[in-house]
Amino acid sequence: MKKIIKNGIIVTAAETYKADIMVENEKIVLIGQDLSDSSAEIIDAKGNYVFPGGVDPHTHLEMPFGGTVSKDDFETGTIAAAHGGTTTVIDFCLTNKGKPLQDSIDQWHAKSRDKSVIDYSFHLMISEMNDSVLEQLPSVIEDEGITSFKVFMAYKNVFQADDETLFRTLEEAKRLGALVMVHAENGDVIDHLVKKALEKGQTDPIYHALTRPPEAEGEATGRAAQLTGLADSQLYVVHVSCENAVEEISKARKKGYQVIGETCPQYLVLDQSYLEKPNFEGAKYVWSPPLREKKHQDVLWNALKTGELQTLGSDQCSFDFKGQKDLGKGDFTKIPNGGPIIEDRVSLLFSEGVKKGRISLNQFVDIISTRIAKTFGIFPQKGTISVGADADLVIFDPNIERTISVETSHMAADYNPFEGIKVTGQPVSVLSRGEFVIRDKEFVGKVGSGNYLKRARFGELKQSHEELYQN
Amino acid sequence: MKKIIKNGIIVTAAETYKADIMVENEKIVLIGQDLSDSSAEIIDAKGNYVFPGGVDPHTHLEMPFGGTVSKDDFETGTIAAAHGGTTTVIDFCLTNKGKPLQDSIDQWHAKSRDKSVIDYSFHLMISEMNDSVLEQLPSVIEDEGITSFKVFMAYKNVFQADDETLFRTLEEAKRLGALVMVHAENGDVIDHLVKKALEKGQTDPIYHALTRPPEAEGEATGRAAQLTGLADSQLYVVHVSCENAVEEISKARKKGYQVIGETCPQYLVLDQSYLEKPNFEGAKYVWSPPLREKKHQDVLWNALKTGELQTLGSDQCSFDFKGQKDLGKGDFTKIPNGGPIIEDRVSLLFSEGVKKGRISLNQFVDIISTRIAKTFGIFPQKGTISVGADADLVIFDPNIERTISVETSHMAADYNPFEGIKVTGQPVSVLSRGEFVIRDKEFVGKVGSGNYLKRARFGELKQSHEELYQN
Amino acid sequence: MKKIIKNGIIVTAAETYKADIMVENEKIVLIGQDLSDSSAEIIDAKGNYVFPGGVDPHTHLEMPFGGTVSKDDFETGTIAAAHGGTTTVIDFCLTNKGKPLQDSIDQWHAKSRDKSVIDYSFHLMISEMNDSVLEQLPSVIEDEGITSFKVFMAYKNVFQADDETLFRTLEEAKRLGALVMVHAENGDVIDHLVKKALEKGQTDPIYHALTRPPEAEGEATGRAAQLTGLADSQLYVVHVSCENAVEEISKARKKGYQVIGETCPQYLVLDQSYLEKPNFEGAKYVWSPPLREKKHQDVLWNALKTGELQTLGSDQCSFDFKGQKDLGKGDFTKIPNGGPIIEDRVSLLFSEGVKKGRISLNQFVDIISTRIAKTFGIFPQKGTISVGADADLVIFDPNIERTISVETSHMAADYNPFEGIKVTGQPVSVLSRGEFVIRDKEFVGKVGSGNYLKRARFGELKQSHEELYQN
Amino acid sequence: MKKIIKNGIIVTAAETYKADIMVENEKIVLIGQDLSDSSAEIIDAKGNYVFPGGVDPHTHLEMPFGGTVSKDDFETGTIAAAHGGTTTVIDFCLTNKGKPLQDSIDQWHAKSRDKSVIDYSFHLMISEMNDSVLEQLPSVIEDEGITSFKVFMAYKNVFQADDETLFRTLEEAKRLGALVMVHAENGDVIDHLVKKALEKGQTDPIYHALTRPPEAEGEATGRAAQLTGLADSQLYVVHVSCENAVEEISKARKKGYQVIGETCPQYLVLDQSYLEKPNFEGAKYVWSPPLREKKHQDVLWNALKTGELQTLGSDQCSFDFKGQKDLGKGDFTKIPNGGPIIEDRVSLLFSEGVKKGRISLNQFVDIISTRIAKTFGIFPQKGTISVGADADLVIFDPNIERTISVETSHMAADYNPFEGIKVTGQPVSVLSRGEFVIRDKEFVGKVGSGNYLKRARFGELKQSHEELYQN
Ligand SMILES: [Zn+2]
Ligand SMILES: [Zn+2]
Ligand SMILES: [Zn+2]
Ligand SMILES: [Zn+2]
Ligand SMILES: [Zn+2]
Ligand SMILES: [Zn+2]
Ligand SMILES: [Zn+2]
Ligand SMILES: [Zn+2]
Repeated sequence: MKKIIKNGIIVTAAETYKADIMVENEKIVLIGQDLSDSSAEIIDAKGNYVFPGGVDPHTHLEMPFGGTVSKDDFETGTIAAAHGGTTTVIDFCLTNKGKPLQDSIDQWHAKSRDKSVIDYSFHLMISEMNDSVLEQLPSVIEDEGITSFKVFMAYKNVFQADDETLFRTLEEAKRLGALVMVHAENGDVIDHLVKKALEKGQTDPIYHALTRPPEAEGEATGRAAQLTGLADSQLYVVHVSCENAVEEISKARKKGYQVIGETCPQYLVLDQSYLEKPNFEGAKYVWSPPLREKKHQDVLWNALKTGELQTLGSDQCSFDFKGQKDLGKGDFTKIPNGGPIIEDRVSLLFSEGVKKGRISLNQFVDIISTRIAKTFGIFPQKGTISVGADADLVIFDPNIERTISVETSHMAADYNPFEGIKVTGQPVSVLSRGEFVIRDKEFVGKVGSGNYLKRARFGELKQSHEELYQN
Repeated sequence: MKKIIKNGIIVTAAETYKADIMVENEKIVLIGQDLSDSSAEIIDAKGNYVFPGGVDPHTHLEMPFGGTVSKDDFETGTIAAAHGGTTTVIDFCLTNKGKPLQDSIDQWHAKSRDKSVIDYSFHLMISEMNDSVLEQLPSVIEDEGITSFKVFMAYKNVFQADDETLFRTLEEAKRLGALVMVHAENGDVIDHLVKKALEKGQTDPIYHALTRPPEAEGEATGRAAQLTGLADSQLYVVHVSCENAVEEISKARKKGYQVIGETCPQYLVLDQSYLEKPNFEGAKYVWSPPLREKKHQDVLWNALKTGELQTLGSDQCSFDFKGQKDLGKGDFTKIPNGGPIIEDRVSLLFSEGVKKGRISLNQFVDIISTRIAKTFGIFPQKGTISVGADADLVIFDPNIERTISVETSHMAADYNPFEGIKVTGQPVSVLSRGEFVIRDKEFVGKVGSGNYLKRARFGELKQSHEELYQN
Repeated sequence: MKKIIKNGIIVTAAETYKADIMVENEKIVLIGQDLSDSSAEIIDAKGNYVFPGGVDPHTHLEMPFGGTVSKDDFETGTIAAAHGGTTTVIDFCLTNKGKPLQDSIDQWHAKSRDKSVIDYSFHLMISEMNDSVLEQLPSVIEDEGITSFKVFMAYKNVFQADDETLFRTLEEAKRLGALVMVHAENGDVIDHLVKKALEKGQTDPIYHALTRPPEAEGEATGRAAQLTGLADSQLYVVHVSCENAVEEISKARKKGYQVIGETCPQYLVLDQSYLEKPNFEGAKYVWSPPLREKKHQDVLWNALKTGELQTLGSDQCSFDFKGQKDLGKGDFTKIPNGGPIIEDRVSLLFSEGVKKGRISLNQFVDIISTRIAKTFGIFPQKGTISVGADADLVIFDPNIERTISVETSHMAADYNPFEGIKVTGQPVSVLSRGEFVIRDKEFVGKVGSGNYLKRARFGELKQSHEELYQN
Repeated sequence: MKKIIKNGIIVTAAETYKADIMVENEKIVLIGQDLSDSSAEIIDAKGNYVFPGGVDPHTHLEMPFGGTVSKDDFETGTIAAAHGGTTTVIDFCLTNKGKPLQDSIDQWHAKSRDKSVIDYSFHLMISEMNDSVLEQLPSVIEDEGITSFKVFMAYKNVFQADDETLFRTLEEAKRLGALVMVHAENGDVIDHLVKKALEKGQTDPIYHALTRPPEAEGEATGRAAQLTGLADSQLYVVHVSCENAVEEISKARKKGYQVIGETCPQYLVLDQSYLEKPNFEGAKYVWSPPLREKKHQDVLWNALKTGELQTLGSDQCSFDFKGQKDLGKGDFTKIPNGGPIIEDRVSLLFSEGVKKGRISLNQFVDIISTRIAKTFGIFPQKGTISVGADADLVIFDPNIERTISVETSHMAADYNPFEGIKVTGQPVSVLSRGEFVIRDKEFVGKVGSGNYLKRARFGELKQSHEELYQN
């Protein structure tokens, strides 16, 4: 059945205008003034913004980590995402050395297939680079449509790859048309600092931050960027948290290297002092890279404004405070890394960014949706309000004032790291491929309705139907 | 009468998609797939790109300079602009110390009113800052809708303003919501170098370049940027030609200063060696800042790609080689500065930028149209293909191969500085507020049909009708 | 009569060693272990340091300023200098537009000739650059041995020169072998900010600092540096006070420009908060550039350490608090700029620099003496403990702990800006050309005994006798 | 027996003056004008320069490498060094994982003890960091006086240490008062590029350079520098060859990190094109890092001038072209890395640096001697002409013009990489601890007369006798 969304202000990465949108067969089919169609359901946007559904490029749903599993799975996680205005997630598929990549991918399909309420896709972790892996990659790209590979420079003896693996991954990515993503922290340095801290009995959550200093992130970011330049490849630095890393990205871009940087809401609004909360509550704010001193926030905001950083991911990886985070009592290294962020990503950027004049309204849409869709090969199917695109739409009231709280959150974890923070603006209704997932702030979607998205190669458009887009 | 443009690939600053556009009463009213309306004229875009008409933020039409007047006036200049895919120009209104600003503005209205075939607006030159000027500025902004002020840091004893004037203009602009534009070259240094060259008998055109070194531009750009930071104001640096200036803009932006940089096609594709052409032909390439050594081109391109530079102006100011440029035979300082560029601005950026992989297709639209419209307060009336916007549209065949030549140019001057350069892509048809100005490469417009555009304050949207856009 | 200084640790810009020094006929004639000569007076250095007498490159003794005259003249000023371990001063000779340069120089000779207790020389202010000045300069250099020219970029309508004057001075300096010195602040901007402050009734001393922001100094420093690069000349930036200026100097040096930076003790140890002292006491700390926020201090120290800044001047220009500084009550612009610094320059750098591990002992000597002597054409006559050099020697006890106070100062002003600051180390005895000026902390010199020093061209050695030093 | 060196111009890192030097019991005992002593041998320096003997901080004498051994041993190597004006060498003592450090040190003593004609010392390679190594280090420092540790970031699977080893070495060095030296190239990247080249049949010497790009050196340099900052330790980057590395060092120093950079003559005067010489002659120029494109030379020279680089080492590691270098015919990886440089280090810096105006005469002495002596804990015993110092002296004729050639070289290898290069200036006579090693260009020393030098901790003075230098 057709739908017409009326009385909205359409906001895209470039435009702000008033028009109605007609949706049919999952797609946007018509944009115009005063649209009418007797067969269409009329949805009144009431003067609110209508923007393309957010794309979260960085989630870890139901992910095993340190002997436990992240709390939100593809069901609760994507329901929360939808509440927050996100209609696509790209989750990290972990792999194991020596095991077939397809096994891991199948596992990830199994986790998500019957649960996700919005569309989703996967990045693939690369833990080694050898002849066997090289043989498997073409199928990963062509059959699975997975065109982004993740390499860890940290988590020594767990996920960490050496520079040769990173460099070869960059080379292969270039050859195959994929994008390399890095978790950029110097794992060797961190591993040693952690050991020293534990030896000294420094076991509280704050030592998580103090043993992962900004220099360790800056160094690794610069290293990855320079290897990218050398390989003439393309790099996406996930979860940039500090000035040190921004400087390296900026320097690389000035040299003409293809380096894209992502930051996360937690680095924009929280800071290192949160890890010092009493009663072990600091553990709620343990993720990697850690929260930084407040002065880094301004640098991150300015980098979003000038385009040195280009996207916002959530790094969603939630754990309960009780029963999970508290595994690390007496030893901060046992605190599972991560937090529940997926739901508040969009609202926080709007409230702290647009409302406070740090970025423009169009930049906001670009940062939470369009740029990500383009970067990861799902544009213009996703990330845009334009004719032919999937009708993934958010009706967003920019004036609602509310306070973030675990009470009103839809994520599974037993706390919200943004508890008490006041934000302005909230998604009222959200459509995924033309169907309401959220309507008047209530979940009305269907578990398992999300589709798996095969993605285009890096730099290419995702063609949703028969058209041939030139250039 | 309605029109429907069918079979085009719509390209905006953010989107690339296939859809039809319906135009009515000068505006875009509907965008959809397979639009039909029996009362509408159907225009077949034949698979070509359709993008928003270019906005040229930097023209000098019929401008007095050095005892002569620039060759293209608002008639020939805007016809040529339209041929090239530009549907709006913003011309520089020169003023005289001690004279009412309104007199100058009236003069500019008189020149343009009955001639322009596309819409147009003015920037206002500020040559002094005193109580009288301060009193006049509110009316300039409110009544004339002129929200950008130009200050010259060069042309000593002619246009050059001192730092106090520049600084106060920045302060007033901040207060009033205007944007300050600078011609950033150190006029004192240049004036002295010129005198020395002439004393030594160095009178050939190449000495125009050698007496205006990149350092003089870098210095002035840095100075203007730092004054902007101090005044917490907003700056637009016109015609950035060299790495030195890009570095300063980049440094300022990193500090969070609001600095926008424009470059021009001549700096992207020509270089200093052109000034050494024999038979005084170097004079054809005399403008200020001068063409630079080739190595600067890469820096400019990369700056467009990363967003350190954001717009492309033509700095159109054409003079005949015979009868005008040759006034400078035997004394390069008498060569009128400027050239015929307005027509080739868009095609050159497409061909050298998009086709050669230096910038994306969406960036191209942003750089020649959208960003400029936003920067100068005419968005979303101009600079976008969205419902409610003026139907300023370019149907662009990306595959036509042709060679630029004065033979086929529509500008009035007797030469074309890009003579012989091969480009790919050409505007086939161009509409201004829904009417064809160019159809199948022929001018079909009406002299004097262009409207004067009052512009919104810096940072504000231009509201073309009753809507109230929020934020 | 000969003297032998025994039992000292000789410290030069490069060396630290234990040896005796024999002095005869004003010169150092012998350095060795266990020197003896029955005809010589033996001076026991008692294990203290012996280093070359400090050279203060930046003083304003008996200088007219704002309707008053700086308090210390060449008598009190040089006595205080000697107490502080300084044995040479270079004072700024002010000039007037349109007046013969020689007149000003004669005036300065008249002020100093019969008063100075140590050797001295002059820099010459350049306030205009025209044919007349050009004709006079060769004599200034050859007859007067004045090989450094000072240009002011601030003090609008008083001392301020325009960029053409600065640029031409740089060119002439290059041609003639002189060094250009700049007071680098943007006078236009400051003048305007000052007017605005006064209009708002902001008349307290703190507004002196707030109307001369670091950006105004950074901008002017960068401008002067870039003009120097263009002219392929040599520049000395006096009294660098802030990170903004250091950055510009560093950038210029990286480009291979010949730029030397001086800072002053006040910027290293005091900060902007001093200007907020109650009871108008902030006026005691009014000089230009003003004291900066504390964070700039670290940058200055590190720049001294890495060699980005190379010298320390006092900018001595003292005024009484009562009767002079208080001219500015109710109007900060009337506060005479400057303070009594000449006496504490050396001790403060030793105590805050060497003792606190920020610079090495040899760097200390370089910064307060050797580098300055080399820079201004009096090396190796001054600035070194080597055979053949003038016996300008300081016997310095590095372990004396004392508190700086006007009570124990020898400068004429009625306050000391470093009042209450604890320092370690003090000159015990000081010799000028082999004669004691200070002995056991008492002045024992002779008023008028100081010689005027003609200086070598920039980059050349000052040959004190017949030798021809090659290179 | 005493000696008096008369009629020389003494040049130190700070001074240039004319005086005589008396030498007795290996030491400088007196410096003065017109010294005389009937019991002394008079040496006429004939107006030449007399400067402190050079210190070469970077040699590999009789070093095993790739199945062969470097040609010059401590006999031929130090004789050649002396001819070139070097009177101290510090050689790299290689170690093996799991073997006692003392074994390696003993081996190095055995190689050098009976051969060296000048004084010498060792750096110690650190290939692993564990409890056993930690236990051994105090004795290395206290008993052996070895206070500098070398870590390799390249030569994968041979010398390369991982980041944890580097970081821990930095921490231990800080604790113990030692200096960490790094060979900074990214071994992982290089190893992979080398494999790829060989697979493609790219076996010529030029591929040695092309598989070790500047980015690999810049990256590793930045990494080491940032780890140094994090550990608050001290770093010495050996053989800096390119702008990329200089930039990183400069950035680190600006942050206040203690980072010292060394370059080598080959990088200052040769370039990458040498590796393309026909008939496999490119192999003569194979060392690591490789020679770079010519543009890097200017950056290195300017860095020496501004102090961003501070020392010059030879990286002496000579191999015959026939019989050693030609092991790599058909496979560039089998070419032994290194060349005969030790003899020409000083002359090349003088001729290309001082004579061409790139650095001053005093800087020259600092760079080849004084700064090195200070950096490695042998100052003021070495590196200075001052009373009490070892009489290691070079009498240097600055005007001799000659052409470097293997014919006239004293190094053992069968070629000289600087063959045919004209230089101005040559050591005429050289004294080591008061005895001639070179006299009128002939070797007159005694094999085995060199002493092993125990060195002071980083930042401390080497006290050659009973004196206690304060500070
Ligand atoms: Zn991560
Ligand atoms: Zn993650
Ligand atoms: Zn201009
Ligand atoms: Zn213009
Ligand atoms: Zn001053
Ligand atoms: Zn002064
Ligand atoms: Zn090495
Ligand atoms: Zn080596």
